[in-house]
Amino acid sequence: MRSKFQKRSKKTGLSPGSLVHVGSKYSEKSKITLIRYDETFFTEKEISQIADFRSEKDKQGIKWLNIDGLQDIKLFEDIGEFFGLHPLVLEDILNTDQRPKMEDYGEYIYLVLRNFHGQENGDLLSDQVSIILGKDFILSFQERESDLFDSIKDKMNKNKGRIRKEGTDYLAHAIIDNIVDNYFIVLENLEEKIEYLEDDLVKKATPSTLDTIHILKRELILLRKSLWPLREAVSSLGRSDSPLINKSTVVYFKDIYDHTIAIIDTVETFRDMLSGMLDIYLSTISNRLNEVMKVLTIIATIFMPLTFIAGVYGMNFKYMPELEFRWGYFGVLGIMLVIALLMLMYFKKKKWI
Amino acid sequence: MRSKFQKRSKKTGLSPGSLVHVGSKYSEKSKITLIRYDETFFTEKEISQIADFRSEKDKQGIKWLNIDGLQDIKLFEDIGEFFGLHPLVLEDILNTDQRPKMEDYGEYIYLVLRNFHGQENGDLLSDQVSIILGKDFILSFQERESDLFDSIKDKMNKNKGRIRKEGTDYLAHAIIDNIVDNYFIVLENLEEKIEYLEDDLVKKATPSTLDTIHILKRELILLRKSLWPLREAVSSLGRSDSPLINKSTVVYFKDIYDHTIAIIDTVETFRDMLSGMLDIYLSTISNRLNEVMKVLTIIATIFMPLTFIAGVYGMNFKYMPELEFRWGYFGVLGIMLVIALLMLMYFKKKKWI
Amino acid sequence: MRSKFQKRSKKTGLSPGSLVHVGSKYSEKSKITLIRYDETFFTEKEISQIADFRSEKDKQGIKWLNIDGLQDIKLFEDIGEFFGLHPLVLEDILNTDQRPKMEDYGEYIYLVLRNFHGQENGDLLSDQVSIILGKDFILSFQERESDLFDSIKDKMNKNKGRIRKEGTDYLAHAIIDNIVDNYFIVLENLEEKIEYLEDDLVKKATPSTLDTIHILKRELILLRKSLWPLREAVSSLGRSDSPLINKSTVVYFKDIYDHTIAIIDTVETFRDMLSGMLDIYLSTISNRLNEVMKVLTIIATIFMPLTFIAGVYGMNFKYMPELEFRWGYFGVLGIMLVIALLMLMYFKKKKWI
Amino acid sequence: MRSKFQKRSKKTGLSPGSLVHVGSKYSEKSKITLIRYDETFFTEKEISQIADFRSEKDKQGIKWLNIDGLQDIKLFEDIGEFFGLHPLVLEDILNTDQRPKMEDYGEYIYLVLRNFHGQENGDLLSDQVSIILGKDFILSFQERESDLFDSIKDKMNKNKGRIRKEGTDYLAHAIIDNIVDNYFIVLENLEEKIEYLEDDLVKKATPSTLDTIHILKRELILLRKSLWPLREAVSSLGRSDSPLINKSTVVYFKDIYDHTIAIIDTVETFRDMLSGMLDIYLSTISNRLNEVMKVLTIIATIFMPLTFIAGVYGMNFKYMPELEFRWGYFGVLGIMLVIALLMLMYFKKKKWI
Amino acid sequence: MRSKFQKRSKKTGLSPGSLVHVGSKYSEKSKITLIRYDETFFTEKEISQIADFRSEKDKQGIKWLNIDGLQDIKLFEDIGEFFGLHPLVLEDILNTDQRPKMEDYGEYIYLVLRNFHGQENGDLLSDQVSIILGKDFILSFQERESDLFDSIKDKMNKNKGRIRKEGTDYLAHAIIDNIVDNYFIVLENLEEKIEYLEDDLVKKATPSTLDTIHILKRELILLRKSLWPLREAVSSLGRSDSPLINKSTVVYFKDIYDHTIAIIDTVETFRDMLSGMLDIYLSTISNRLNEVMKVLTIIATIFMPLTFIAGVYGMNFKYMPELEFRWGYFGVLGIMLVIALLMLMYFKKKKWI
Repeated sequence: MRSKFQKRSKKTGLSPGSLVHVGSKYSEKSKITLIRYDETFFTEKEISQIADFRSEKDKQGIKWLNIDGLQDIKLFEDIGEFFGLHPLVLEDILNTDQRPKMEDYGEYIYLVLRNFHGQENGDLLSDQVSIILGKDFILSFQERESDLFDSIKDKMNKNKGRIRKEGTDYLAHAIIDNIVDNYFIVLENLEEKIEYLEDDLVKKATPSTLDTIHILKRELILLRKSLWPLREAVSSLGRSDSPLINKSTVVYFKDIYDHTIAIIDTVETFRDMLSGMLDIYLSTISNRLNEVMKVLTIIATIFMPLTFIAGVYGMNFKYMPELEFRWGYFGVLGIMLVIALLMLMYFKKKKWI
Repeated sequence: MRSKFQKRSKKTGLSPGSLVHVGSKYSEKSKITLIRYDETFFTEKEISQIADFRSEKDKQGIKWLNIDGLQDIKLFEDIGEFFGLHPLVLEDILNTDQRPKMEDYGEYIYLVLRNFHGQENGDLLSDQVSIILGKDFILSFQERESDLFDSIKDKMNKNKGRIRKEGTDYLAHAIIDNIVDNYFIVLENLEEKIEYLEDDLVKKATPSTLDTIHILKRELILLRKSLWPLREAVSSLGRSDSPLINKSTVVYFKDIYDHTIAIIDTVETFRDMLSGMLDIYLSTISNRLNEVMKVLTIIATIFMPLTFIAGVYGMNFKYMPELEFRWGYFGVLGIMLVIALLMLMYFKKKKWI
Repeated sequence: MRSKFQKRSKKTGLSPGSLVHVGSKYSEKSKITLIRYDETFFTEKEISQIADFRSEKDKQGIKWLNIDGLQDIKLFEDIGEFFGLHPLVLEDILNTDQRPKMEDYGEYIYLVLRNFHGQENGDLLSDQVSIILGKDFILSFQERESDLFDSIKDKMNKNKGRIRKEGTDYLAHAIIDNIVDNYFIVLENLEEKIEYLEDDLVKKATPSTLDTIHILKRELILLRKSLWPLREAVSSLGRSDSPLINKSTVVYFKDIYDHTIAIIDTVETFRDMLSGMLDIYLSTISNRLNEVMKVLTIIATIFMPLTFIAGVYGMNFKYMPELEFRWGYFGVLGIMLVIALLMLMYFKKKKWI
Repeated sequence: MRSKFQKRSKKTGLSPGSLVHVGSKYSEKSKITLIRYDETFFTEKEISQIADFRSEKDKQGIKWLNIDGLQDIKLFEDIGEFFGLHPLVLEDILNTDQRPKMEDYGEYIYLVLRNFHGQENGDLLSDQVSIILGKDFILSFQERESDLFDSIKDKMNKNKGRIRKEGTDYLAHAIIDNIVDNYFIVLENLEEKIEYLEDDLVKKATPSTLDTIHILKRELILLRKSLWPLREAVSSLGRSDSPLINKSTVVYFKDIYDHTIAIIDTVETFRDMLSGMLDIYLSTISNRLNEVMKVLTIIATIFMPLTFIAGVYGMNFKYMPELEFRWGYFGVLGIMLVIALLMLMYFKKKKWI
Repeated sequence: MRSKFQKRSKKTGLSPGSLVHVGSKYSEKSKITLIRYDETFFTEKEISQIADFRSEKDKQGIKWLNIDGLQDIKLFEDIGEFFGLHPLVLEDILNTDQRPKMEDYGEYIYLVLRNFHGQENGDLLSDQVSIILGKDFILSFQERESDLFDSIKDKMNKNKGRIRKEGTDYLAHAIIDNIVDNYFIVLENLEEKIEYLEDDLVKKATPSTLDTIHILKRELILLRKSLWPLREAVSSLGRSDSPLINKSTVVYFKDIYDHTIAIIDTVETFRDMLSGMLDIYLSTISNRLNEVMKVLTIIATIFMPLTFIAGVYGMNFKYMPELEFRWGYFGVLGIMLVIALLMLMYFKKKKWI
């Protein structure tokens, strides 16, 4: 569970809007990539400071500024000033424990999302992705470099699909769509594990089965925690009356909304399945205990009376007439056999064996 | 659980609206059936490509185009262009893991439904059925050929009921009604199994009982997952103010809505019953363990003291006066009998036997 | 659980509005009773076909037509035509697995209710009662003859209460009120059983206790299933702006609404109580297992060491000095006694005995 | 659980509004107290019939009529006529199984509440208190005499607080406030028991602990059943736009509303705590079973092999060389000791001892 | 659980608005601190009675009066009169068991919050903080002196952030923000404990693990109880149309609202995790019982038959031919070995060892 829940205590007492990075440290230097494009062209270059953007600002086309790495506080102060961002927005970009949300600041829309991108020791890893959606610019912030935007850039470069023809809202939609698709990959992984577990459960449930159920449950809890606010954020985008969102793009946000609903449905279904499997597991343990106890009881019930009889004729009384009988020994052995058989028949009738 | 949740990962990174079939492959070639009818006539023919429809388009009557099989991407691109469908609609038709939904695109209404039609290895099978409801045409898409529409065509052919007199909305209603009726059949199957299980539970619960409960629970989870959105979709149809839905048809959608509510109620009732049965099963196991343990304890409690006494008189001490007694042996046997009877009386009093 | 959930499969594929009776068959012939009354007179007579009603139709007073038995399809087609009922209403009257509901068709209000009227083998029995509430007529449909309306007719006859002075809405209210009162009787029965169970639980819980809990739970599930829609239907009646419902009657529907809420509350309370009792039952079983195991452990712990000691001195070694001791035997017996007492003290300290 | 749920069956079939007292019988004769007061005076007297009130009716000040005892049907008919109460209101006053509610009849507001006032055999006792709030009069009805109103009368008499200066709505508020305060007392009692239980749970959980949890749970269920409708009723009062409620009094109803919310919160918290304690109790039982079984297993595992060895050398074979060994006996004893020690070390390592 | 739920019983029967302090007593004397500030200056001084404030009242700047300690009833009467507070507000300030809430009284807004500030014996400690937010003054009330406001005063003094430039609403926001930050600290503590517990659970679950789960659960219940109303109160502030709240401050309240949502999410996640851990714990106990029983059964199943055989040849029958065999003894030993090995192989196959 480590590092799922950020340590905010270092922020306690600071005034709201104070810029402090809260989250995992990845690199000291942020990497800034500037993409400019419209239907006719597409350029991508790396810039070293926000001042370099000044000359590009009023050029033609949509400007997309992607920042990887959130350690460089100075950079974020510059960005805040340059684009006129609210201090709380800057604070939220830097604090990487935000719930997904969408906030309309009039001039721009602020979006926070969580991108799930892998697992480590059975723990899901996710990074915060923040998006500022303006009229002719879009800012995206990631905790560190990733390949999240590669497919989008690729499509832009090859001028495939509608992405070069549409505005910043469609670009934002493409980013969110990519992030939501990553949830599907996580779910597929989970599904495989659940299927595997289910096969196991019937054949050979061990304590490690329990462990796996526990880990899968925890992953679902974490997924859920970011899914519900994501759904809300995407829904707000779809219902937004901001001039930044075109009518024609709304149907695309509605589509993403459907996907998040489908993901939530699947997560809930998985939860139900895991609960069912835990029940099965517990019943299996109880059944096994029953099996063990039956074996013990059968053995004890057969041999205790027999041992007792043997004990009786092992007594050293002077006058024990049976001991003198010619067929006494074999008679007793015979009686013992009959008792054992009667016991076995009793257990057979009780369906214990 | 296999194939319940579609692998979407192959779509990740593609731009939205890209046409890729996601789902089980059934056949390479789609089968296109064209039905044209009004109150006075009914014709049905198979066509091989969408171009063949061009000549029929402006003819009199309602045109119903049914497509079985979703592998032929080219066909769907043609359909999309011909009918002016939104790319996302085409995408949803091809991705067969959609939740049931209803979307009003003004010119047409898009409907997704799941048709449950059987079981295999205890897993419910369902296919996606998509419906495009236009002013004088209706498009229906199935993953593969089925007999879902046979009864409707039959009624049309024999001119029974209102179906030939009403518009496309009534035809859509008939299709949905058929699909909802299939849920009732699934429920009847489930009910039979639950009844059978319940009889079993009291008499002879085995680990396989648990398995059956588990499987039934999972089926209910799957049913539920498609029922709630279905209810929503049908409700949207009933409350829709689209000009494509006649006032007089609304009451029929309301009727279907009542059916979905009744189905959901029954599913919830079944869930409650299965939960109750799991509790019963677990208690039954506990009760049996108690029974087993009682047998063991009774046997041990009777024979352990007796064996001990026998052991005492089996000791080889030189000076053991009882051994010399004339009636020592029979005395000891008598004492053993008394002890055994006392024990039995004790257990009788405790209601163990 | 038998016959709780109707077999609708025979209806699958029929066009909606097809008249087929779905439900238990009671008698082939329907019995039609016609009551006409106003403040000044009250007449009741049996008629054999709907045509007989034609002459009465325009007579003075409120006409109440009660039909017992739903097998006579022809009769219902006549009724539908005569009163101008929607085909779906006729269909719902005949399919006796409807959820309680209220539907306003403008000219008339259609009501479905479930009347609980007894128990058989621990299963609650209920019949569907349908009511058509028109301006000056009321139609009521029952699956078979019952005494449900006897008290109402009695009051009418004796001209007690407001029933003769008010309109059809008040009569409908009286019918619903009777049906809701029957829920109270069912609840009183359940309460008695729950109380009895509770007394049992503490003193002598047996597996049959579990069975009773299970059966009571199932009955509550069934009650609940019809109670929530009933509440909704009654609430719709109270909030209805139909001209068929007088302002002054609304407060009576509000009163029934309060009763249904109270019934639902009680059902939920019973459910909570039964859940609590199941917990108690399971704990009781666990406690008993503990008791059984303690007895076994005490016996084994005392006699195993003693038997071992006896075994040691039963060995046949040539050189075993103790055997020769004069007081060896009694010494060993003494040691055994001390061991047994020490064990008992240990168990005493552990509060096992 | 006795007498929590009233027997309504005796009312079944009566027309609504029929006056029959449903509930516990306390005394045949109702006691009527008339209080008249305004800012300048306060008088209290007992009257024997409602006719006695006629002369007081138009006198100055607020008239508060309190009736203790609900058996005298005639009295209630008189009251209903005199004050123009709706028959359903009278019926609800007499049926003491009402859920708390607030009903605005225009001329007057009708309030039903439950006053919890003690416990008997672990069962909470509550009486129904009905209030009719008119423009210049207030009627209150109790099942029997109680000290519920003493503190209010006392304050009135001593002219403390605002009660003499305000209208009937403030008086109603004072009554409800008293009743809500009684819930706090019940909660304090419960809290004490829960604390006591919690201390017990850790140290010495017995089956009686389970019983106490069960009883406390049931009391919370009963409390809850009346709390939620109470909250609704108080909320309706606060939001009411009736001319009977002054603007300045609304804030007082809001205050009571806050109290009911706080009470509900505490009840829910207690429920959560009791559920947690049941879990603890069940785990404790399981833990104890484990302890018992470990003792048994340790004893059996040590003595069974030893007894077997003793048994071997107790065999009577002619040729058993060890028997002849000089140190055979002591050797075997030594081996037995070693085996016992090895076993103990094994259990030590397994942390069983 | 002590002192979580205040004893209100001493208030029962008093008229609403009576000033009685309900809660823990800390000191007899309240400490009054007066801060006055605007963008240009900042002064802080202690005053001994509310009359001292009279001269400051109309001076320039925002007046912040902080009162620590709620025992001095006279002081609160003075404050109520001076600032024209509603009696119910004063009552709520003094009764320290309020749920967090926000009430708009037009002239001023009344806020109640709970400040969590530590733990004692595993119990969370919280104090009630009340805030009266007026146009140019703010009153804050604490149960006792704390360092809650130190960081705010410090920032004011050093003129850091916006706090000196904004109005009373921003100051209120700063106080609430501090209190909400304290929840984060509590959560971090809880997270650490949960992590520690989780590590423990796998390796060495003991009954004390259960205890810890129980305690953590109870803490979450308490946190939750104050979190939901807190969220509601903060949300009301954000949506308030009171002239006391500036448009520009609303976004800050929205920010706090996001924090409370995040806290609630985390608390719910922790609850889910603890439930999961309890399941794991119970399964672990069951597994251990299984282990113990297997050991017992293996031992018993091997040695009981062997002991029986030894017993047979310990019988003293005259005629037992095997006893005379030369290799009888070794033969029997061999047979015993074979039986033991067969048993072991059986258990191996059953995966018990």
